[in-house]
Amino acid sequence: MSRIVTVGAAQLGPIARSDTRTQVVERLIALLKQGSEHGCDVVVFPELALTTFFPRWYMEDQAEVDQFFEKSMPGTDTQPLFDAAREYGVGFYIGYAELTEQDGQVRHFNTSILVDKSGEIVGKYRKIHLPGHAEHEEYRAFQHLEKRYFETGDMGWPVYRAFGGIIGMCICNDRRWPETYRMMGLQGVEMVMVGYNTPRHNPPSPEHDRLSDFHNHLVMQSAAYQNGTWVIGVAKAGVEEGCELIGGSVIIAPSGEIVARCTGMGDELAVAICDFEMGHSYKNTIFNFEAHREPQHYGLIVERKGAKVTV
Amino acid sequence: MSRIVTVGAAQLGPIARSDTRTQVVERLIALLKQGSEHGCDVVVFPELALTTFFPRWYMEDQAEVDQFFEKSMPGTDTQPLFDAAREYGVGFYIGYAELTEQDGQVRHFNTSILVDKSGEIVGKYRKIHLPGHAEHEEYRAFQHLEKRYFETGDMGWPVYRAFGGIIGMCICNDRRWPETYRMMGLQGVEMVMVGYNTPRHNPPSPEHDRLSDFHNHLVMQSAAYQNGTWVIGVAKAGVEEGCELIGGSVIIAPSGEIVARCTGMGDELAVAICDFEMGHSYKNTIFNFEAHREPQHYGLIVERKGAKVTV
Repeated sequence: MSRIVTVGAAQLGPIARSDTRTQVVERLIALLKQGSEHGCDVVVFPELALTTFFPRWYMEDQAEVDQFFEKSMPGTDTQPLFDAAREYGVGFYIGYAELTEQDGQVRHFNTSILVDKSGEIVGKYRKIHLPGHAEHEEYRAFQHLEKRYFETGDMGWPVYRAFGGIIGMCICNDRRWPETYRMMGLQGVEMVMVGYNTPRHNPPSPEHDRLSDFHNHLVMQSAAYQNGTWVIGVAKAGVEEGCELIGGSVIIAPSGEIVARCTGMGDELAVAICDFEMGHSYKNTIFNFEAHREPQHYGLIVERKGAKVTV
Repeated sequence: MSRIVTVGAAQLGPIARSDTRTQVVERLIALLKQGSEHGCDVVVFPELALTTFFPRWYMEDQAEVDQFFEKSMPGTDTQPLFDAAREYGVGFYIGYAELTEQDGQVRHFNTSILVDKSGEIVGKYRKIHLPGHAEHEEYRAFQHLEKRYFETGDMGWPVYRAFGGIIGMCICNDRRWPETYRMMGLQGVEMVMVGYNTPRHNPPSPEHDRLSDFHNHLVMQSAAYQNGTWVIGVAKAGVEEGCELIGGSVIIAPSGEIVARCTGMGDELAVAICDFEMGHSYKNTIFNFEAHREPQHYGLIVERKGAKVTV
C-alpha cells in the first residue's frame, strides 16, 4: 500500500535587506499557489525565509537585530501565508527567526514550523547545530554570526504525524551532522524537511568552496539512505546583498537518489510524488536498527563533544 | 607541512572454496610487490581475504566452519605475507576469520589487522556490525550467515599511530553506519581502512540491487567528509562460487572525493598519494567537533537500539 504525499521544494532567490515582510510573503504565496496547481500537499521553504540572511552582518544594537525576528507566528505580516495555505489546501514548512519569552527571559532561536492544510501549526523545531562564530571577525568579507544571534535549540528533534506520514525537521547546518538524522531515524521518521542558507564562500576554508554543491547533496543523500527517509532540502539561493548563496534544492528518496531538483538561483518550485512507504524497504532490511545497531559500542558519541587524541 | 602516506587499494578477484591459503597468499604477495614498485607505504586488502566468503553457505558441522578460520596470525600459511611485508617494506591491512581462545572459551570474530613495514602487527579490530542472519533461510540462493558464524566484536573502534598518522579500521557492513566513523572521528582518526565482501544481490531487498555501487560509495564518501578523514574501501570482487560481489574499491580524500579507484572485478591495485594533514582543514573548520557538536541532544543514539514510533 502506498502512502503518497506530493511535495514541493520551494526555493527562494535573494531577499534584500530592504525588502518588507509583505513583499516576501507575496513571493511565498505565489510559490504556494504554484504548488497547489501542481497537486502539492505541502511545500518546503528555506531557513530564515522571511528576511535576508542577517547573520552576515555584525550588529551591536540588539533592537536592530530584533527587527529580523518574529515576535509571534503567525503575525500581522505572515497571516496571509497561513490564510493562503487554508485557501489552497497546501501545507508548508518555513524557517524564521523566533523571538519569544520563556520564564520571563527573552529567547532567540533559529526556528522552523510545519503548517497543515488548514493553516494550523502542527510542528516546531529550533536549530541545534548553529554554525559560524559569536564575535566579529574582521578578516571575513561577510560574517556568519549565528552563534551570536541565536541560542542552541532546546527541543531536540521531535517528529510529527502530518500529511499521512511521520515528519521531522532540521535547519541548514544540522544537515551536515549524521547525528541529526539518526535522532529522527530512531523515532521512525519518514520525511525530513530542511531549509538552508549556505554561502558558497566559507572564509575559514576557502579551499572547500568549489565543493559546496557536492557536499550539500552528499550529506543529505547519505542520511536519506542510512535512515530510510525522504529528505527535502531547500535553499535560499543566488547573490543576496553581495553574498552568493548556493542553490541546489532537492527532493531525495530513501534510496539516496535525487528525484527532483531546482536548477536556477531564483524563486523556483521542484515537485515530487513521494511515497512514505518507500523507506520501509530500507528500515526493514539493511537498516533494520533493532537487528543491526550496536549502541553499546557508541558511547563516545554522547560522552565526548570534541575529538581527543589519546594514542 | 604535509605528512604523506602512499596507499594501495589491493582489490581481490574471486577466491574459490577449493583454493588453498598458499594460493591466496601468493596473490596477496603479488599485489604487495606491485605496491612496493609503485611507492606504496601500505596496501589495504579486503575483508576475509584468505578464503572464499564462506558465510554464503549454511553449515551445521562446526569443524567444517572452523576450516575457514585462522587459529594464529601469522600462521604457517600466512607467514610468507608477513615476510614479504618486511622484504618489500610495505605494510598492510587484511581481514580474516579469527578463531581464538579467551578465558577458556572458543571465540569467533570477523577481524582485521594492521601490519607495519617490519611485518609486525600494530593494530587489530573485530567487526561490530555483523549483517545478515543466524538461521538457515531457504528462500535465499546464497545465505549471509555472519550472525551465525561470528560474535560481535569486543574491542570498540580503537585507532593506532602508524605510517605517520592516526589509523582506524572497520569491516564491510560497518561502513554503512555513521556511528562507526564518528567513534573514530572522536579519537582524531586520519585514515579509515575498510575491506568488504558485498554481494550485488541482497535477497531481502532485491529492489535495491541496482544501487549497490552507488550506496557503497555514498556511505564512505559522506563519512570521509563528515569526519575529515581518508577512507580506503577495498572489495573482494567478481563472481565467486556463483555469487557476484561488487568491486568499486576506492581511495577517498577527506573532501569526500574519490581520488583513486579500481575499475575491474579481479586482482587490481589502485594507488594514491595521501596527505594525513588534509583532513585538518575540515576538522578545524566546519567539522570542528569541539565548537559545533551538541552531544547533550544525541541521547537516543546510545539509549535506543531499534526505532520506536511514539507519535
